[in-house]
Amino acid sequence: MPPGILETSRRSAIGAHPFVTHTPLGPGREFDAIRRFWSTLGDRAAGGGDDCAFIELDGTTLAVSCDLSIEGTHFRLGWLKAHEIGWRACAASLSDLAAVAATPVGILAAVGLPREMPASLAVDLMDGVAEAAHAAGCGVVGGDLVRSDAITIDVVSLGRGDHLVRRVGAQPGDTLWITGALGGPAAALAAWEEGQEPEETARARFARPEPRIAAAQWLAARGARAMIDVSDGLLADAAHLAAASGVRCAVERERVPVHPAATADQAIVGGEEYELLVALPASVTGDVGTRFAEAHGFPLTRVGAVDAGDGVVLREHGAAVAPPVGFGHFD
Amino acid sequence: MPPGILETSRRSAIGAHPFVTHTPLGPGREFDAIRRFWSTLGDRAAGGGDDCAFIELDGTTLAVSCDLSIEGTHFRLGWLKAHEIGWRACAASLSDLAAVAATPVGILAAVGLPREMPASLAVDLMDGVAEAAHAAGCGVVGGDLVRSDAITIDVVSLGRGDHLVRRVGAQPGDTLWITGALGGPAAALAAWEEGQEPEETARARFARPEPRIAAAQWLAARGARAMIDVSDGLLADAAHLAAASGVRCAVERERVPVHPAATADQAIVGGEEYELLVALPASVTGDVGTRFAEAHGFPLTRVGAVDAGDGVVLREHGAAVAPPVGFGHFD
Repeated sequence: MPPGILETSRRSAIGAHPFVTHTPLGPGREFDAIRRFWSTLGDRAAGGGDDCAFIELDGTTLAVSCDLSIEGTHFRLGWLKAHEIGWRACAASLSDLAAVAATPVGILAAVGLPREMPASLAVDLMDGVAEAAHAAGCGVVGGDLVRSDAITIDVVSLGRGDHLVRRVGAQPGDTLWITGALGGPAAALAAWEEGQEPEETARARFARPEPRIAAAQWLAARGARAMIDVSDGLLADAAHLAAASGVRCAVERERVPVHPAATADQAIVGGEEYELLVALPASVTGDVGTRFAEAHGFPLTRVGAVDAGDGVVLREHGAAVAPPVGFGHFD
Repeated sequence: MPPGILETSRRSAIGAHPFVTHTPLGPGREFDAIRRFWSTLGDRAAGGGDDCAFIELDGTTLAVSCDLSIEGTHFRLGWLKAHEIGWRACAASLSDLAAVAATPVGILAAVGLPREMPASLAVDLMDGVAEAAHAAGCGVVGGDLVRSDAITIDVVSLGRGDHLVRRVGAQPGDTLWITGALGGPAAALAAWEEGQEPEETARARFARPEPRIAAAQWLAARGARAMIDVSDGLLADAAHLAAASGVRCAVERERVPVHPAATADQAIVGGEEYELLVALPASVTGDVGTRFAEAHGFPLTRVGAVDAGDGVVLREHGAAVAPPVGFGHFD
């Protein structure tokens, strides 16, 4: 991810590894105490640093995530239309349900709006929230609406976890796959930061991300071992998955699908992708990508492998290479 | 509620009557379009304007509420300690579960903190959130942590609704009861607005409200017909209950229990109380107040009756009187 005001901040479950391998409040050590605090909570409460919290209710597993988007931190008004701000906030939250292959059952939207915001824009924003929910097969079941100086949206996503896939579960010998093509959001951000209008399809990747709900369930049904959505960047999220599963993730640079408007580095370290990184058992044959693309209309690409060890290694034509600048931000 | 920066903004369920009888974004008509929008959503989604949204999961009813607190809108830094900001945000959200007599199963906290906030204060704030959750018998199961200019806390409360009490259900002939004594938060706000330090117990009513979880379940077990938590003010919330139930609520001014540091007017129109207003059937005998106080250590007082009709009438020694200034704000 290019330097800028965007912060990766999408840890909705507070578990064994929250806020450790990235810096939602970073950089620097000033918030180490907070990270420790959440870690302590997590040990008493939620699971292993997954994208959702899980609550057992009479044999049904409820997956819950909340995702807070604030103007100036996560987006700028000049970049996005009001409808896109709402859609994006909701899609980012729903992507946490996709990451665990949960089925959305409803969202709540807590919204803070500035007094001077025209009512038509406020309606557009909320319409964007509702459209993203409906596109994912659920409705807006509740919310809160208050005054604020900065546009503030916390979207709470609730899902059924009938066949959950978590970050824990990847095993040496598994293959690593990614949905879609990466780098579009980072390319859009880079353009905005330079005062330019992004290329249209790259802009759409940032402004109107698609939570991969159906794709996640398709992958879960085919034996997905571990999964995460790419919010912090491919390498950073591979590191989260590796840490949770107690394995090493090897990413093969030349295999990473790059959005046409992006650079290879943007694809490898750019965040806010909301694509799925998934570990599949070796028994899933190579044509799974073809079958996935036929079913969903976008690619599933093998980008690496799961090995014994820990951490993430980036390889190019078989040889380990240094990660691009930007990855260190998430160390 | 005295005029000031505090806005009543606690509608977590978007239903048939959202944002109609109060003005979370008011005053004025500028946000009528938003209210209509939420109303439209609500018709497709949630129930009848209750404090929580309800989701049916395999025979279990999940009650969910979110409550967004923002510095400058809901509190000022000079008024509250960081721990109190966290406690209050969490307690306000849990109070929505109390309002429907749900049992808390977990909360999520989405928190935005300013870069310049000392880490120790941030930890205090989050500790306040966690303490309020634990006091209500549940844990912090997830959250989100981002940068923001203003301290921002959205607390999502999840509860089981095994014996739900809603705003709908009050019948003519029922009696109206209130837990606790009212006016403390309004007295504290009035003092702060005048640049004074509030009386200690009034301050505590604002800074450390107690969600009436156990009291709500006690009342539900004794046949409570309809219930609401007093967040907008006694008269305003009586109006919500009346509208939802299709009845008239008559409040007898001389019966309203007034906090020792508050005026009668503050008790009648002050918000942020988080006490319960409940309609009990006439078959529940007059000693229910005594039994309640023995069980919970604070009073349950009969403040009026449910009649045929609509709206709210304030009576003094049997005669209708005009509501105090401040009630019109919620019309």
